[in-house]
Amino acid sequence: MNNALPSWNPGASKSAILDFVARVSDTDGADFVPTEERIATFDNDGTLWCEQPMQVQVFFAQHRLEQLAAKDPSMRERQPYKAFLERDVRTLAALGKKGLFEIAMTTHANLTTDEFDEDVRSWFSATKHPKLGRPFTECVYRPQLELLDFLRANGFKTFIVSGGGVDFMRPFAQAIYGIPPEQVIGSSMKTRFEFRDGQPVLVKLPELGSFDDRDAKPENIFLHIGRKPILAFGNSDGDLPMLRYTKGGKGPSLALVLHHDDAEREFTYDRDFLLSPLADALDHANAYGIGLVSMKHDWKDVF
Amino acid sequence: MNNALPSWNPGASKSAILDFVARVSDTDGADFVPTEERIATFDNDGTLWCEQPMQVQVFFAQHRLEQLAAKDPSMRERQPYKAFLERDVRTLAALGKKGLFEIAMTTHANLTTDEFDEDVRSWFSATKHPKLGRPFTECVYRPQLELLDFLRANGFKTFIVSGGGVDFMRPFAQAIYGIPPEQVIGSSMKTRFEFRDGQPVLVKLPELGSFDDRDAKPENIFLHIGRKPILAFGNSDGDLPMLRYTKGGKGPSLALVLHHDDAEREFTYDRDFLLSPLADALDHANAYGIGLVSMKHDWKDVF
Repeated sequence: MNNALPSWNPGASKSAILDFVARVSDTDGADFVPTEERIATFDNDGTLWCEQPMQVQVFFAQHRLEQLAAKDPSMRERQPYKAFLERDVRTLAALGKKGLFEIAMTTHANLTTDEFDEDVRSWFSATKHPKLGRPFTECVYRPQLELLDFLRANGFKTFIVSGGGVDFMRPFAQAIYGIPPEQVIGSSMKTRFEFRDGQPVLVKLPELGSFDDRDAKPENIFLHIGRKPILAFGNSDGDLPMLRYTKGGKGPSLALVLHHDDAEREFTYDRDFLLSPLADALDHANAYGIGLVSMKHDWKDVF
Repeated sequence: MNNALPSWNPGASKSAILDFVARVSDTDGADFVPTEERIATFDNDGTLWCEQPMQVQVFFAQHRLEQLAAKDPSMRERQPYKAFLERDVRTLAALGKKGLFEIAMTTHANLTTDEFDEDVRSWFSATKHPKLGRPFTECVYRPQLELLDFLRANGFKTFIVSGGGVDFMRPFAQAIYGIPPEQVIGSSMKTRFEFRDGQPVLVKLPELGSFDDRDAKPENIFLHIGRKPILAFGNSDGDLPMLRYTKGGKGPSLALVLHHDDAEREFTYDRDFLLSPLADALDHANAYGIGLVSMKHDWKDVF
């Protein structure tokens, strides 16, 4: 284990992780957890990859709205589409995170899930982060990739539990995180099974299935996984119910929050990020038994 | 492979399975499928275990209603509870499969998911099948257990996709089928995250989340798994959308339906079983590309 997590600086966070994994893996110890119960859940936006200046899916929605507005230019003058197209963060933030994602996801209504998948893949391969200047799929945090690998090497099953669209995340989750589609939980629109040109397809509907944020995270963990995680990692109050659920009950557990306090290498934000603030979890981390991970101090490398 | 599936008689069904698994496993063949895409989905009631004279969950609901009626005897005279308590199959069938399961699942509203899990486990250990005279968990089909094992030994990931309650099936799915909780998809009631006595819990609500039957099966496969299965196995028209979804698109696929035609060793039923008929899939199996498995002829042993 001495060579594990090379992009993590020595310190309380790294020690807490190494110690936790050692304890649950020690077959003779009091905290041993069988491998099938070693469930680890990670938020995505701001936890595994960069969510600034806006969540990646907002850029993706903007791309889709550009396609739609090319056919119907009046959309450029109508809210909330205008705000997406103009990256008007203040107006977008006023929609709230749920409203924002719901509109973003609705822009692909009536496509089949295969068509949507195709659109996601081609967009990712053609688009770069506006500030970091490289593909979004390269804006992932290296320490977290190491942590995912380290957990899996120690018998953990790793899941994403994110407010992002489940079908938006799946096309890249395997490639960049090593997480297969069936271990991705996210927000979802309802779909309808039907036949098009004689082929069975699933069509995306403009109707929200689940917005996977706050209380919906433990609820969806129960629905999809059916076990309480023993490790959870987030970065906002939207993750707090998942983190507190993980800390509940008996047995060893580890809940961590990434604090974006590194203006030089990434971005600095917490309670001021309107789309997904970190305040309650920051103010009461101790009381909740949650460990704060400082990007600035705990990470040797970020990307 | 010559020793595989010993409880299956030689014949078209067994050959179709062995041939299919050989083809998708042959790295040099045109039909090779990478292991991560080898998704197999199985219905539960009537496909993996016995669903006669009624689905197991109906007996479980009856047990719960007995508890509730002990406190409120008026339930014994009120429909639909009266029908459950008296095992009045005709009245239950009139509720439809969805209505029946929804009522059954609502009987546990307001329990936490942990309390529910406890109740399921203790009920299973205390209860026997009314006709077969042994625990329900021993009313599973041996040929199917062999098939699940055989598929997993060949790199498949096996899932249950059933109309049964997801949290009703999970406590036994690992033990009897070797299928972990996160690979069980079923009907679900909504839950609410809250704190009771300072502990985070999920409370079962009397509100249907999803009734996992017919079109909902492929829709939930997309939501939970995010990939099209390459093998699906069912036994009623409620499985038909899942089977046809599996047969759609490119690449090799196998869809099978179990036909209950063995009065001597199990039960004989198909289009006459009101709660879950097999008619369309039986009449059009060829046109749909679905293989019919005869319990009587294809299975050497049943239990």
